[in-house]
Amino acid sequence: MVIKLMKSHASVRDYKEKQLAREEVDELIEAAQHAASSHFVQAYSIVWVTDPEKRKKLGKLSSNPRQIEGAGAVFLMCADYNRLKHAAAMQGQTIVFDQAENLIVAITDVGLVAQNLALAAESKGYGICYIGGVRNNMEAISELVGLPEGVFPVYGLTVGVPNEANEVKPRLPVEAILHENAYDEAKYKTLLAEYDQTISDYYQKRTSNQKSITWTQQMADFLNKPHRTNLREFLKKKGFLFK
Amino acid sequence: MVIKLMKSHASVRDYKEKQLAREEVDELIEAAQHAASSHFVQAYSIVWVTDPEKRKKLGKLSSNPRQIEGAGAVFLMCADYNRLKHAAAMQGQTIVFDQAENLIVAITDVGLVAQNLALAAESKGYGICYIGGVRNNMEAISELVGLPEGVFPVYGLTVGVPNEANEVKPRLPVEAILHENAYDEAKYKTLLAEYDQTISDYYQKRTSNQKSITWTQQMADFLNKPHRTNLREFLKKKGFLFK
Repeated sequence: MVIKLMKSHASVRDYKEKQLAREEVDELIEAAQHAASSHFVQAYSIVWVTDPEKRKKLGKLSSNPRQIEGAGAVFLMCADYNRLKHAAAMQGQTIVFDQAENLIVAITDVGLVAQNLALAAESKGYGICYIGGVRNNMEAISELVGLPEGVFPVYGLTVGVPNEANEVKPRLPVEAILHENAYDEAKYKTLLAEYDQTISDYYQKRTSNQKSITWTQQMADFLNKPHRTNLREFLKKKGFLFK
Repeated sequence: MVIKLMKSHASVRDYKEKQLAREEVDELIEAAQHAASSHFVQAYSIVWVTDPEKRKKLGKLSSNPRQIEGAGAVFLMCADYNRLKHAAAMQGQTIVFDQAENLIVAITDVGLVAQNLALAAESKGYGICYIGGVRNNMEAISELVGLPEGVFPVYGLTVGVPNEANEVKPRLPVEAILHENAYDEAKYKTLLAEYDQTISDYYQKRTSNQKSITWTQQMADFLNKPHRTNLREFLKKKGFLFK
């Protein structure tokens, strides 16, 4: 049943008006928190944006105004070493989080919790969508919700009663993801060509937003230039120095 | 039911001998892949280590010999831009993945897939454990399974039939994680003191490995020094330059 739920996932960007109640948000987050956490640091916070003015600003800043204003709940999924600073201070100590390791740990902690939260919400009939667009304007968004040093929004997550039903997009074949004992790049040429056909068929046949493009084309077009080039400077300001 | 499954999670480090079959691994990974992926880049690969010699070496290199040799399946969850390089090459193009953004995207993609994989396995009665220890010796582990430029192991994941039943560890209270509209650090002092009591009680009463320590003590002791300080240099070699 869990596997069936996973395989039915498709992002939902259009929601009905119903807002999630505090009790339900608590229930979802409490379940999500049971994800594993590296050395039990629990290096994440979730900012639930309910204020209509802030939702409006956040929508603009993350290039998703309609979705963010219309969702049943909007969460900013944040990496967080600030709480750990407070924890150490209670013991008269300070913490070090300026290594690449600390960034990997926090983004991982956020990822495991976020996917649990997404699935918990989907198991209750809600739709969800991750919003990478919050990384377009991390500084302004951090100011909007008052994020201190050691905290940054990795992505947003919208949740709500679906007002649309999207087809499940075909993923890369398992053989293209799974390597046994040794990484094998020789197999990609054939597998990616086959997958291009699958994706091209999918885009042409789906019920809305039809287009004619392959996966390798999409990837080449998207990744031939750098993205969000001001991110590193912002992360440095927040204390993440990648030492 | 999904929420109940999440809330029952406790890491399992001791497994019965049964090895997972290829069909079952395929089923779990196919389900896991349905997690969302930023711009659909699917920037991850999974190396399934079945060779006993490699398992032995991996166990030593990641400071978890007993668990890794004894698990029903051992996966290296890798960030991967190599497949995307091949995809772009098929279109006569090259890709850029030397920004902090690319690192966040790949670690996030790995995290969402990994948590789906963990839950899918748990839904079938398996136990799981994440192995951050693979970051102790990333270079040697990358050589062991032949990871090319653009690929690195973010963590391991062991899966198997549990040979132990661990108590669920109490997480931070939801109030300490969830902030409404604005980040509120004023509340930590009281909440963390209460949580220290909860954790201290848990450690003293649990059935094995009892100890007397609070969460803030653990965190202060662990985070008062840098960890895995050679990570950045290794990631640079793999093409992740954090620009």
